[in-house]
Amino acid sequence: MTIVSRPAAGPPAGPAAPELIAAGFELENADAPILHHGMNLADIAHLLDLGATGVIPPEAARRLLALLLATLDIPAEDFPYDPANGEPYNSRERYFVSQAGDVAGWLHAGRPRREAVRVAFRLRLREDLTDLIEATAGLAAEIARVSQEHAGTLMADQTYLQHAQPSTFGHYLLSFAFPVLRAGKRLDEALEWTDASPGGAGCVNGSRLLSDRAHVASLLGFRSVAEHTRDAMWQVDGLFDMVSAAAGLMVTQSKLAEDLEIWASQEFDYVTLADGYSRASVLMPQKRNPYALSIIRGAAGTLIGRLSGLLAVAKTPSARSDNLIFAYGEVPKALDLAVRATRLSTGVVRTLEVNAERMRSSLDSGFSQATDLAEYIMQTCGIDYRSAYRVVGHAVRQASAAGLRGTDIDGARLDAAATEITGHPLGLTGRDLSAALDPWQIVASRTLLGGAAPGEVERMAAGAAADAARLADEARRWRAVYTEAEEALLTAARQITEN
Amino acid sequence: MTIVSRPAAGPPAGPAAPELIAAGFELENADAPILHHGMNLADIAHLLDLGATGVIPPEAARRLLALLLATLDIPAEDFPYDPANGEPYNSRERYFVSQAGDVAGWLHAGRPRREAVRVAFRLRLREDLTDLIEATAGLAAEIARVSQEHAGTLMADQTYLQHAQPSTFGHYLLSFAFPVLRAGKRLDEALEWTDASPGGAGCVNGSRLLSDRAHVASLLGFRSVAEHTRDAMWQVDGLFDMVSAAAGLMVTQSKLAEDLEIWASQEFDYVTLADGYSRASVLMPQKRNPYALSIIRGAAGTLIGRLSGLLAVAKTPSARSDNLIFAYGEVPKALDLAVRATRLSTGVVRTLEVNAERMRSSLDSGFSQATDLAEYIMQTCGIDYRSAYRVVGHAVRQASAAGLRGTDIDGARLDAAATEITGHPLGLTGRDLSAALDPWQIVASRTLLGGAAPGEVERMAAGAAADAARLADEARRWRAVYTEAEEALLTAARQITEN
Amino acid sequence: MTIVSRPAAGPPAGPAAPELIAAGFELENADAPILHHGMNLADIAHLLDLGATGVIPPEAARRLLALLLATLDIPAEDFPYDPANGEPYNSRERYFVSQAGDVAGWLHAGRPRREAVRVAFRLRLREDLTDLIEATAGLAAEIARVSQEHAGTLMADQTYLQHAQPSTFGHYLLSFAFPVLRAGKRLDEALEWTDASPGGAGCVNGSRLLSDRAHVASLLGFRSVAEHTRDAMWQVDGLFDMVSAAAGLMVTQSKLAEDLEIWASQEFDYVTLADGYSRASVLMPQKRNPYALSIIRGAAGTLIGRLSGLLAVAKTPSARSDNLIFAYGEVPKALDLAVRATRLSTGVVRTLEVNAERMRSSLDSGFSQATDLAEYIMQTCGIDYRSAYRVVGHAVRQASAAGLRGTDIDGARLDAAATEITGHPLGLTGRDLSAALDPWQIVASRTLLGGAAPGEVERMAAGAAADAARLADEARRWRAVYTEAEEALLTAARQITEN
Amino acid sequence: MTIVSRPAAGPPAGPAAPELIAAGFELENADAPILHHGMNLADIAHLLDLGATGVIPPEAARRLLALLLATLDIPAEDFPYDPANGEPYNSRERYFVSQAGDVAGWLHAGRPRREAVRVAFRLRLREDLTDLIEATAGLAAEIARVSQEHAGTLMADQTYLQHAQPSTFGHYLLSFAFPVLRAGKRLDEALEWTDASPGGAGCVNGSRLLSDRAHVASLLGFRSVAEHTRDAMWQVDGLFDMVSAAAGLMVTQSKLAEDLEIWASQEFDYVTLADGYSRASVLMPQKRNPYALSIIRGAAGTLIGRLSGLLAVAKTPSARSDNLIFAYGEVPKALDLAVRATRLSTGVVRTLEVNAERMRSSLDSGFSQATDLAEYIMQTCGIDYRSAYRVVGHAVRQASAAGLRGTDIDGARLDAAATEITGHPLGLTGRDLSAALDPWQIVASRTLLGGAAPGEVERMAAGAAADAARLADEARRWRAVYTEAEEALLTAARQITEN
Repeated sequence: MTIVSRPAAGPPAGPAAPELIAAGFELENADAPILHHGMNLADIAHLLDLGATGVIPPEAARRLLALLLATLDIPAEDFPYDPANGEPYNSRERYFVSQAGDVAGWLHAGRPRREAVRVAFRLRLREDLTDLIEATAGLAAEIARVSQEHAGTLMADQTYLQHAQPSTFGHYLLSFAFPVLRAGKRLDEALEWTDASPGGAGCVNGSRLLSDRAHVASLLGFRSVAEHTRDAMWQVDGLFDMVSAAAGLMVTQSKLAEDLEIWASQEFDYVTLADGYSRASVLMPQKRNPYALSIIRGAAGTLIGRLSGLLAVAKTPSARSDNLIFAYGEVPKALDLAVRATRLSTGVVRTLEVNAERMRSSLDSGFSQATDLAEYIMQTCGIDYRSAYRVVGHAVRQASAAGLRGTDIDGARLDAAATEITGHPLGLTGRDLSAALDPWQIVASRTLLGGAAPGEVERMAAGAAADAARLADEARRWRAVYTEAEEALLTAARQITEN
Repeated sequence: MTIVSRPAAGPPAGPAAPELIAAGFELENADAPILHHGMNLADIAHLLDLGATGVIPPEAARRLLALLLATLDIPAEDFPYDPANGEPYNSRERYFVSQAGDVAGWLHAGRPRREAVRVAFRLRLREDLTDLIEATAGLAAEIARVSQEHAGTLMADQTYLQHAQPSTFGHYLLSFAFPVLRAGKRLDEALEWTDASPGGAGCVNGSRLLSDRAHVASLLGFRSVAEHTRDAMWQVDGLFDMVSAAAGLMVTQSKLAEDLEIWASQEFDYVTLADGYSRASVLMPQKRNPYALSIIRGAAGTLIGRLSGLLAVAKTPSARSDNLIFAYGEVPKALDLAVRATRLSTGVVRTLEVNAERMRSSLDSGFSQATDLAEYIMQTCGIDYRSAYRVVGHAVRQASAAGLRGTDIDGARLDAAATEITGHPLGLTGRDLSAALDPWQIVASRTLLGGAAPGEVERMAAGAAADAARLADEARRWRAVYTEAEEALLTAARQITEN
Repeated sequence: MTIVSRPAAGPPAGPAAPELIAAGFELENADAPILHHGMNLADIAHLLDLGATGVIPPEAARRLLALLLATLDIPAEDFPYDPANGEPYNSRERYFVSQAGDVAGWLHAGRPRREAVRVAFRLRLREDLTDLIEATAGLAAEIARVSQEHAGTLMADQTYLQHAQPSTFGHYLLSFAFPVLRAGKRLDEALEWTDASPGGAGCVNGSRLLSDRAHVASLLGFRSVAEHTRDAMWQVDGLFDMVSAAAGLMVTQSKLAEDLEIWASQEFDYVTLADGYSRASVLMPQKRNPYALSIIRGAAGTLIGRLSGLLAVAKTPSARSDNLIFAYGEVPKALDLAVRATRLSTGVVRTLEVNAERMRSSLDSGFSQATDLAEYIMQTCGIDYRSAYRVVGHAVRQASAAGLRGTDIDGARLDAAATEITGHPLGLTGRDLSAALDPWQIVASRTLLGGAAPGEVERMAAGAAADAARLADEARRWRAVYTEAEEALLTAARQITEN
Repeated sequence: MTIVSRPAAGPPAGPAAPELIAAGFELENADAPILHHGMNLADIAHLLDLGATGVIPPEAARRLLALLLATLDIPAEDFPYDPANGEPYNSRERYFVSQAGDVAGWLHAGRPRREAVRVAFRLRLREDLTDLIEATAGLAAEIARVSQEHAGTLMADQTYLQHAQPSTFGHYLLSFAFPVLRAGKRLDEALEWTDASPGGAGCVNGSRLLSDRAHVASLLGFRSVAEHTRDAMWQVDGLFDMVSAAAGLMVTQSKLAEDLEIWASQEFDYVTLADGYSRASVLMPQKRNPYALSIIRGAAGTLIGRLSGLLAVAKTPSARSDNLIFAYGEVPKALDLAVRATRLSTGVVRTLEVNAERMRSSLDSGFSQATDLAEYIMQTCGIDYRSAYRVVGHAVRQASAAGLRGTDIDGARLDAAATEITGHPLGLTGRDLSAALDPWQIVASRTLLGGAAPGEVERMAAGAAADAARLADEARRWRAVYTEAEEALLTAARQITEN
């Protein structure tokens, strides 16, 4: 028998310090409603598993299952979660003891608090992710629909808010469908990570009590088992992915929202937000504030912070509790914010009034045909693009100074510019330049893959709509799997209690 | 009369879209309790101001003040805040109309929703900041006290967790008092920014109704007026400062927490956390988890995210509502998290058990005297430091391989090493090296400004304690100012209603 | 003699692994130019200090000082920094040995690599901060100047880009001077932290060799000594402050830049960027891209990331080298980016063309007078603000639908609206409403502190200009101190070498 | 002919302002080496495409191709990139004109600067990603190999650094292989996004000059075409993914590095870093600093900042140049940092010395068997887990206070504890408890999926090694595709110039 000098071992005695309750247990209990239902299901499945493997006496299993089934009906806000008891799991333990005495102690067999909460967390996350994927698909579908409607609505595409080239509102809007759909795909992959059962991991090195980790996984409708037990207990990289995908999704929406905010100004007047997405001012009677767009943009910024916070929290040695204690609340709330904002964007797009006439008149009063004009000159006059560019640039400057518009440029003006720039005219005087000047003909010429020609936009929009539908179907299919698994789980539990 | 084509002006009609309520108004109403009391005070002060300048009929003022005073007693959770009405200010408006009819309409004279909420926000922030400053001072004071106690507790100072030089636990711990006090100073400056009244800014260009912005400022106990009205309405740079100071403060605490977590391991066993700051495991009966330290570290990571989120939200054009809508909840909650975690750190430090014996034995079994030894050789043998370093490095390697400790090195071993490295001995055999080998003598020699000599640590600790006391006094003094102002405000309002 | 089992002690043998060179030493050497000059100065001061206290033989001091003075003239890119040697300090050591043999070894007496680099880092940071403070003052001064010029340039102030109230471009622009000046103040405080000498801290517990830490501080022109030696060696909270202030400063500029980008659009046409701040398109001959504004905005986003990266790096236990290794390059580069972008903003503001006519015509075609109109009705008709607001809101909606503008609203229209809303007219028909409708009269009425009245804007602009001048003076004064100290240091060193 | 009032159109005249050069063009030119080779290839492919479609005269194509092929041999640092010309593309344009006169102007036909740079960017990113994927696979392979070696090396698994349960170093280490492999998978998906050609997108609405976007894609070896032209030009969501995956990967490595740093302390002494990954101290002769681990951890923090910076930069309206200007340098540099750090981690793991004896003795002196003991009691004595836990907890406390170890607990002590806790003994006195006390038997019992039993660890390690090999193969396969495409492209270009 060796006598060693070591720190004292064994559970701490006495009550938690008030500062610990305020900073730690209150924080965790505030998030208890997020995990409440999942903890109920996790406990039921664990008991069924313990029962099936004979670890726990049948009568204990029956009594505890009955208690847990009754607990299912207690909403989180009515359950006696109390920070003074410790974290939520402790309150549950205390409640079960208060209801069932020592029998409640069987619940902890072969499973640490940590595992129960990890299971509940994943159950919750897969619901949140399914919601977000469906919302994402909904936004993509709406974007595709409205893009199709406006495949022929002429608008100057802009960079730095400067007119670049003639395009359509449909082509513009559709460019958002693709990053939205890609975000959906990433969330789908995050769901795959989430939908793996950490059940049966024991503390961390695996369990000696259970016989098959697939059993509890299947009871809870998980599509797979998170294999390595320490990885299953402590890994957080999957959380980074889902929050990162949500942040990226919101940044994409923020871009759209900010474009629309600019375009809803009196000066642009390209679009009008529906009343239901605007807000009155309490002081200023004339205001129609595009409040929805502010919310979307703010949600994007907030999610950027949630992601960096999550990563910063995780920058610790391995197997540190803070990595998850803080994630239990932060991640579901971040996903929820993304769901709400994504649905809001969907509503904004669905009800957006597009002022096609104003877009057209703005396009007409600019010079966005200049590139096509230079290309036309290059091709018909046989001069290199840089020279053609210089000629057109000069003509544009002259026309602009004279108060003219792009469509007012004619061959004579180009020849004059060419003479000034290159020393001789290009023989353009009198030429019909409409193919290079008429925005409609310009747009119609963009039939190449991905271009702004209406037919191409319609084709792409149909493709995006189909992708969105598939994504939504997939999400709905998974949700059905989860619902069925939950029903089967409860049925199995009820059968035991009723025997 | 010019007929122009513009977007329709005037407030939007009809109800808000459900997605807008879910994403926007629910978010804002969830934060209503944070601003509730401040909005009550802001409304009362505004009414007193309107009354004093004669803008509003005396009877209307009287009735509204009575209503507002009654509202003061309604806790936020019982007030009919309802997202369906819009943001919290709209619910207040609706409630006041329900209680007082059209008279309630006078409340909005000369003041947009925005201003009322800005005022309430600053009232709240100055409370939060005062709390945080006081908590910060409390932590610094406790660190100073414990450092003083352990000015003579020998410990190897470590870099990369490798023993560097003999020092004391007191010198180590005191190094945290300084960044904590600096954070306190920064928070003090943030409080100065916060404690300026945006009142009377009108919408943004100033008010034509009021006569003196200092009046409402003084009614609310603000120490100054935020001068430029647009700056007062929209500036958020002061928020960056306070959250940045809080994040920095928490990163400092995280460093301490992580050091202690390592030192509380069985292998180090330098310190023991008090039971009240530890947590039992539900599965593992031997565990005493330093839960408090995880919470502190996680709070640091979370605040890093809150700061980057706040900055990312603010990265918009100017005068955008999202900058503040999201800050109303995020900033007070971030400060509150810092307050709780800082108090927790204070408790951990206050109750920490320091295992001086184990620190000493660990120090003794290492080689942290090597630098002093090399300096001794340089000084007494007249060789340059790099050569002395190489001699000592060689001696250490040899001693280490032989299972010896730093204190076991003697002149003969150094001479042997010198011979091997430089070709000749240094005449150290038989020399008394205790001044360079005895950790206690080494520490005692660090009497230079800021060094580890016990007297110097005690002197610095006393200074830090005095700084902490001043900081706490300052915070308490400001809190008293706020309390008195609030009492005076309510007294003034009551006097009017009672006349 | 105790035989203990411990890890082997003593410096590692053999060359660094190639992956370590690639990931660590290359990184550090890439930043060597940033610290090069400061390391030269730090070495010279350390030698003077060692010489003055007699720690080092006079001849060694002389030879080494001569070598260091010669090194001063070697540009960083020509100095043999080589990652294969280790980090830059190792290359310096090796170079000095190659030039002076063992004598070079005296340089390391009483000072770890860490201290030398810490000193160099602060020398560099104080230069960077001085530059940034001066740039900040320059921006504030330019904003104040242009604001003064446009104190009478009418413009609709906007929220969510919706016209809010009549104001002026001067009042708008001046609102940026205040956060810029506040950032300057914060940088000033960060400079105070930086300008404290970590010299003489020994490794971490203080030095036994030196006699006065103030000596080396004064040699290097530091205004104070960083007292606690461990704090001086390892603290990074001051770095958070400076990067946070720089990030906040850039977010403020990003707001201005994004406003200007919108206003430089064809549709707004409020402002025109000078040619020197615009960029041509290579493809599109008509484009004038406001490139400068993109750079400013991008710098803001980049600095947000630098700040969160800095904080995340610092989230470690205490006394960890990564906290500073990564900061050596990141922080100066972040400050440099802020300097460049701030100077760019200054140029943009200085050369901005303001299209006053277009601002006015846009203001005229809106309804931003509505608030003043409602206040007028409240005051002259004795009805509460909410009722007045409803009347005006209705009138605005009607006028807008009829294609009228705010100035087209007359008493008759208001009475009609009042009748519809409240059931009876307000007797406004025929009344002269110009005080409430004429934007100029509205703006002129905002004479209250901080308001948009030209006189008030001019007064505030003068104040901001004075503050900016003081800030610039302060920065220049500190720079002069640093320059003089450096000259005195070199003179002292030269005197010794020349004796 | 309509006379309109609009901002002046046409390219800006005159030189760029010096502040614009300093803040914008210098920034972009500093990153020119990153894109140099890709721009060469993009130009060659564009010319081949223009030639094939007959847009450009054959002789012009021939001359320009010859020039571009010659340019291929000019290293970026020798190419006349000069910020005074504008961004790098402008310097290229100027250089080509200087070499070929007006003929150079054909290069810009049908392709904006933006497209050329976007193509070059993706060419660069796919190289960087391939490197990172291969490095990731290398790390996973090394982890798997070392884990297999230590499948039988007993160690106490720890949470909060408190001994939790007996496990092995192999099981511990292998838990890192899984997140590393998942990061590899995410990078693979990011590579798929990257490896799509934006070529032929025209400015943004598609090109009218070209006939098939697949042609240029295939010339450059892209696996697909980025379909929607505006999406192809402006999308940045794929960048978020790759930087997020890299940041997650580094956070995982940081966890491992920080664990090892703790374990390399004298007090733990579980592992020893190889000399090549350590660093000597210049002052302290005894130090062996685990420098590599600091670099890995610092890289993780830095990447967290790079990710939040990237997202914050992208939070703008759509089609804003800053989104990409800043990404051109930031993203490749972030990936490169991750590559270097990942290779460093691989080296650290490969050469790590594991002190199995010390791990075992530390395990033996603790109480990590307590859970198994409680489970044993539950199973053999038929009492619930909570009661068993309380009994064992009490026994542990008693044993710990008596200076005993976990293996010293016997049936008599448990019975004594049970009597104290539950009022009666459990009949354990004299029982053989080795199955529950012997760490080796405990570990051997964890044969369930993912558990610590050596066979299970070996099985999982083999699986991880196979996954790593597949990942590496995939990366190498893609690299071969890129190399072959480049060779084919150059061959095709040379054939034209040689005709």
